[in-house]
Amino acid sequence: MSLAVSPPPASARITAVDVLDVRFPTSEQLDGSDAMNPEPDYSAAYVILRTDAGDGLEGHALAFTTGRGNDVQAAAIAALAPHVVGLSVEEVCSDLGAFSRRLVHDPQLRWLGPEKGAIHMATGAVVNAAWDLAAKRAGQPVWRFLGEMSPEELVAQVDFRWLSDALTQREALEILRRAEPGRRERTDRLLEHGYPAYTTTPGWLGYSDEKLARLAREAVADGFTHIKLKVGACLEDDVRRMRTAREAVGDSIRIAVDANQRWDITPAIDWMRALAPYHPYWIEEPTSPDDILGHAAIREALRPIKVATGEHIANRVVFKQLLQAGAVDIVQIDSARVGGVNENLAILLLAAKFDVPVCPHAGGVGLCEMVQHLSMFDYVAVSGTLKDRVIEYVDHLHEHFVDPVRIAGGHYLAPRLPGVGAQMRPESLKEYSYPDGPVWSARV
Amino acid sequence: MSLAVSPPPASARITAVDVLDVRFPTSEQLDGSDAMNPEPDYSAAYVILRTDAGDGLEGHALAFTTGRGNDVQAAAIAALAPHVVGLSVEEVCSDLGAFSRRLVHDPQLRWLGPEKGAIHMATGAVVNAAWDLAAKRAGQPVWRFLGEMSPEELVAQVDFRWLSDALTQREALEILRRAEPGRRERTDRLLEHGYPAYTTTPGWLGYSDEKLARLAREAVADGFTHIKLKVGACLEDDVRRMRTAREAVGDSIRIAVDANQRWDITPAIDWMRALAPYHPYWIEEPTSPDDILGHAAIREALRPIKVATGEHIANRVVFKQLLQAGAVDIVQIDSARVGGVNENLAILLLAAKFDVPVCPHAGGVGLCEMVQHLSMFDYVAVSGTLKDRVIEYVDHLHEHFVDPVRIAGGHYLAPRLPGVGAQMRPESLKEYSYPDGPVWSARV
Repeated sequence: MSLAVSPPPASARITAVDVLDVRFPTSEQLDGSDAMNPEPDYSAAYVILRTDAGDGLEGHALAFTTGRGNDVQAAAIAALAPHVVGLSVEEVCSDLGAFSRRLVHDPQLRWLGPEKGAIHMATGAVVNAAWDLAAKRAGQPVWRFLGEMSPEELVAQVDFRWLSDALTQREALEILRRAEPGRRERTDRLLEHGYPAYTTTPGWLGYSDEKLARLAREAVADGFTHIKLKVGACLEDDVRRMRTAREAVGDSIRIAVDANQRWDITPAIDWMRALAPYHPYWIEEPTSPDDILGHAAIREALRPIKVATGEHIANRVVFKQLLQAGAVDIVQIDSARVGGVNENLAILLLAAKFDVPVCPHAGGVGLCEMVQHLSMFDYVAVSGTLKDRVIEYVDHLHEHFVDPVRIAGGHYLAPRLPGVGAQMRPESLKEYSYPDGPVWSARV
Repeated sequence: MSLAVSPPPASARITAVDVLDVRFPTSEQLDGSDAMNPEPDYSAAYVILRTDAGDGLEGHALAFTTGRGNDVQAAAIAALAPHVVGLSVEEVCSDLGAFSRRLVHDPQLRWLGPEKGAIHMATGAVVNAAWDLAAKRAGQPVWRFLGEMSPEELVAQVDFRWLSDALTQREALEILRRAEPGRRERTDRLLEHGYPAYTTTPGWLGYSDEKLARLAREAVADGFTHIKLKVGACLEDDVRRMRTAREAVGDSIRIAVDANQRWDITPAIDWMRALAPYHPYWIEEPTSPDDILGHAAIREALRPIKVATGEHIANRVVFKQLLQAGAVDIVQIDSARVGGVNENLAILLLAAKFDVPVCPHAGGVGLCEMVQHLSMFDYVAVSGTLKDRVIEYVDHLHEHFVDPVRIAGGHYLAPRLPGVGAQMRPESLKEYSYPDGPVWSARV
């Protein structure tokens, strides 16, 4: 008896873009609280690309928000649907660069950005859903799907508009060709050891000093060599918390701090100087994510404390300038802020060009699941190194995913299921549907 | 017989935030076409604040879009309604600074920005609607309402977060105090002569050379001393069009050109060098609105051709850096891109601090009607000068407004009706309602 499955018809089309408003009532705990986000309800404007291929495959991805506004984000995704429904599955999946540019360059929708805010995050969600579909069709997790593309195929994914003063197509190709030898060894190493992580779990603002110290010690016992504390609400508290954390973990563990944009330039410098005796490794989001010159001034004043930002950086043009201006020591890509895998490829290439390590932002809902693919691909095929690279890890909401992240010994274990990592369990999508799912109808 | 009207009750509340999707099928003509916006349908996500004051006054304003996505913009405005409905009319109107900060700093909604894109334009629309209501209660057009506030009251409107490295509250106060003498004379001068305008009417990309030359000559005959051409689609065409325009108007008329973000840095410089023999006055939006360093490089290379940008600049932090980096000669504020009157006050103050003239972007639908108030206020109470200042004028869609702009002798005549200028005629709101108004139901 033959088990051969017939291939999907070449004429298969994308038949629907389903958009779901999914919210988790995380504000009921203090987990996730920081100086600018006191009570987030971690949420997903969730997208499913459906096809008539008959192969059972769908493209799943999401834009992350912190609660209110998730409906606006969902509306922005829905506004892109007319560009997607009816397209050939084969054409989309075989030229994701063209697909991404089609969405980014809609001459009317771009007025809402351009390439920033809700409409750009919507583009990111739809583009990532298309990568999910393409990777599933190839039977590979996205980090491997990308890691097997040739340098030429990878360069074709990138929109070089507005980048050429910092990174040309030719330079991108050189970076990728330089990293071609050793791809297989690095892939094997990831499959065996995973990718280094750091944890933000000990450091939320709402925690007592005792809880902070206990969680910090537990993190070290679990194999983490790098933890992060939220700061920026009260200087006196932050000095005490930083001292508490340092005493708990000793001198060999890196402790980063994160102000979530709270400060102007001089206050950022002053505040961090007060924490300097406890050797913070980086200061993350010291000020407005739009303030390239401000980050440069803060970095200059605070050396050797590193400056990191990225989770709210709107697009590759701002990352380009942060690198050109020497404004950051660490590039924090986010899987759901910019225009999807394609724009994150551009940012990985920019970081490689400027020799700055990428340490992704994660947490929220699904961000760990998605962004690990990008860092692993970076190691395999772009930077080729793990030096000073760590992916943020937060232990929230993973149970809702079909392929949740697996952490062991302070490392992300390499995902093995096909796709981009964002697919949630159908029962979670139903229970946390806003405002009509059972979790919310009981509350609203 | 007494005509005294009883004052509204002190307890009056904002009872509703109505949001309308209004679109004009402008893509059916070539008016409004440029290198990045080939077929815009000029649209308004329109907002009405209603109260129970019983005085018949409402607050009207709009966010401008170019068609698709106007529904997303409307959804973003609606997401702000819970912050507004139920507030005391008196409290909102007596502290518009606090009202504006309440919207900008919602810790969940800010994830969609922060302070950029659809959610920030929504804030701008709602804030401007509150200014409309406040100015109507005061019986004054906004430029005069603002122009009669004390320096202290004006400074209280501004959110200085992220600005203090370039502009402190004290410096802002000094700028405003320096301009206090002469406010009355400048007000009178505006009432008599109006504010200088320039016109983009001759220069749309879709026009023939003959039409361009004819409209350019007509503009000069009408009193304009400054016109603008769209460029960036085809160099050969642009050289010919620029030569045509220069020959039509002679050497004493300023001709600006506008590339609508079309270029990378080197192409921008090369293209403009080809137009240099015809003495373009400024190059507007040569590249990405996010590229501060890129604008600085272009300005350095092209002197004495001026560099202008602003209609897509997301917020005051980006304007701050454009000024700090010496990246622009001209600041082009837009009434509907940033967080409303309050943030535009911050930008006017920044421009005054760096001694850079403000020449607003307008056109679209309602942008001329709104932004004229800001330039007139700037002349009365901030910069105190008209030198090298002009407001863009485009002759589109003014007939839909209750108080349409009046142009005479190349000047905007000062508006006299109370409010912010955005109120559309009820029949226009009805006819162009999308997709159910008669104009659209006949088409869709």
